[in-house]
Amino acid sequence: SRSLNLAVIPGDGIGQEVVAEGLKVLSAVLPQDVKLETKEFDFGARRYHATGETLTDADVDALKKHDAILLGAIGDPSVPSGVLERGFLLKLRFLFDHHVNLRPSKLLPGVATPLAGEPSIDFIVVREGTEGPYTGNGGTIRKGTEHEVATEVSVNTAFGVERVVRDAFARAQARPRKKLALIHKNNVLTFAGHLWTNVFNKVAEEFPDVTTEYMHVDAATIYLVTQPERFDVIVTDNLFGDIITDLAAAVSGGIGVAASGNINPSGDFPSMFEPVHGSAPDIAGQGKADPTATVLSVALLLRHLGYDAEAARIDEAVSADLAERTGKPARSTSEIGDALAVRVAG
Amino acid sequence: SRSLNLAVIPGDGIGQEVVAEGLKVLSAVLPQDVKLETKEFDFGARRYHATGETLTDADVDALKKHDAILLGAIGDPSVPSGVLERGFLLKLRFLFDHHVNLRPSKLLPGVATPLAGEPSIDFIVVREGTEGPYTGNGGTIRKGTEHEVATEVSVNTAFGVERVVRDAFARAQARPRKKLALIHKNNVLTFAGHLWTNVFNKVAEEFPDVTTEYMHVDAATIYLVTQPERFDVIVTDNLFGDIITDLAAAVSGGIGVAASGNINPSGDFPSMFEPVHGSAPDIAGQGKADPTATVLSVALLLRHLGYDAEAARIDEAVSADLAERTGKPARSTSEIGDALAVRVAG
Ligand SMILES: CC(C)[C@H](C(=O)O)[C@@H](O)C(=O)O
Ligand SMILES: CC(C)[C@H](C(=O)O)[C@@H](O)C(=O)O
Repeated sequence: SRSLNLAVIPGDGIGQEVVAEGLKVLSAVLPQDVKLETKEFDFGARRYHATGETLTDADVDALKKHDAILLGAIGDPSVPSGVLERGFLLKLRFLFDHHVNLRPSKLLPGVATPLAGEPSIDFIVVREGTEGPYTGNGGTIRKGTEHEVATEVSVNTAFGVERVVRDAFARAQARPRKKLALIHKNNVLTFAGHLWTNVFNKVAEEFPDVTTEYMHVDAATIYLVTQPERFDVIVTDNLFGDIITDLAAAVSGGIGVAASGNINPSGDFPSMFEPVHGSAPDIAGQGKADPTATVLSVALLLRHLGYDAEAARIDEAVSADLAERTGKPARSTSEIGDALAVRVAG
Repeated sequence: SRSLNLAVIPGDGIGQEVVAEGLKVLSAVLPQDVKLETKEFDFGARRYHATGETLTDADVDALKKHDAILLGAIGDPSVPSGVLERGFLLKLRFLFDHHVNLRPSKLLPGVATPLAGEPSIDFIVVREGTEGPYTGNGGTIRKGTEHEVATEVSVNTAFGVERVVRDAFARAQARPRKKLALIHKNNVLTFAGHLWTNVFNKVAEEFPDVTTEYMHVDAATIYLVTQPERFDVIVTDNLFGDIITDLAAAVSGGIGVAASGNINPSGDFPSMFEPVHGSAPDIAGQGKADPTATVLSVALLLRHLGYDAEAARIDEAVSADLAERTGKPARSTSEIGDALAVRVAG
């Protein structure tokens, strides 16, 4: 009999509520012979306030022992900006070498979009997850004085860029339209931009059936609202990926349905799956959060572990559920989770 | 009698066509007693190909002698990415210390937006223009090898941040809603982020009547498409400003109507005004380009030089022209310029 050994990090705010529904749907969809074992971790604001810890070496060792990680949300206004982000979220992405940050955007039938007309949106963003301006390189001198200077260093390596570009080409090749766009700002950030562009063009030679284009990040935001159907697969740097995936989520149904995977394709460390939304403390504990993004993150998790049929059942259940929402009264977090669990089981 | 001594840089692609209309409207709106003197400069791709020069010391000295600069567009696919951007556009912003990059976004009646509903959009972005990731700091080692490392250094100073933040607060205070949003990514770019946030909070104490908020750049892209009416004045870093002003232009009528000013408020060097759009080589020379963004940039130029009434006449003429466009056949570049010139003169 098979087993799925899952680390669960509910985290802060609505994290608890949405993760509970994610697990509900996961249990419902898994084949009988798969033994699901979950271990919950208490990372986040409460633990930080209680112990001052964000992620210890022992935590990292414990997390390593799992097949994958499901995360709700980390972050609370009571913690200074950057502490949990750098001390937990980014630390984990770097330690576990989550270099493929995968974020699909699909506008499903019946889902509202802020865009006029009926745009057809179905693309995935492959965001680099371990380099760029996210490395924490940089510093501050003369802090707090009128002569303060603060720097941030974006670090980009041929190794790091090539592996994520290669991953994106493979994903593009496996999709019907076989299109890949590189998004950067190579006319201004010429050092990093030329590295990205050269590596992209070199790898492109190995994928002659993939149609490529290059786009500056500023122009890309225009296309995302005026011609989102233009995109199939996008590959981009860590910071540009952060920005455009929030915009992509907004135009394709909102962050209530935006899923993401922090993937280490080598399998050396567990990959982590999480909704794109944050901890939303303003609505926490009220049963108002939409667990759909977490449930879709569970589908990404299953696909990553080879449970393709089960992942597809979740995607179908979510599509069907969303298609029936229009005009109905709002449901609670657990009502949505229940409905999805019934659909995937049925 | 007064004089307006203007440096004119038509540049590449549609730059020539749109600048001609900008000058047409400028001549029509200026009071009789103002002597307009223009001097044209041939910067851009043609000169670069002919001489290898982008902007020489002599060019800079010649430009300095003017009250302001009107720019069409610089850039052509025949020139490697970055050469004209770094060698001309950014060089000039840095040399002339254009630290206030001003970009208004207003959705005018009758103008199409990709957003559903009828959003009310009227805000200005004050983008820092001389620091951040645009400084050209950084470098490459082992170029072209599998061990290449490329860095980009964002440089931020208390001096540079404070002056642009102060400018933005003053602009917010002068507007009816008196709201100012700081956009950054201070949870990840903690060195630069804390500098921006601290300076912002310190200057805020001097403007108690201005309502402030902080927003991460990724979240800001969501609000720009779901709640654009939320914004009044935005102040942000050079790169974030580049990205969000293209998105802002897209949602508020497109880059055909997006104007910008590269402003040195001290007056030590001439400020430069330009449409946000590029040289659009695909439609160059066909009379298809919309000169409205350039004409609105002329209005920003006039306001900067104290010709407030004339600037207002241009804004009104553009509003009236746009309001009458729906359902009419498309006009040529010069037809639109003629119509605007008639309106401002009348
Ligand atoms: C919370 C923050 C560190 C994170 C990021 O910037 O990557 C978030 O915005 C995301 O997109 O996952
Ligand atoms: C052409 C480029 C250097 C420029 C920038 O990035 O600032 C442009 O995108 C702009 O917004 O004016």
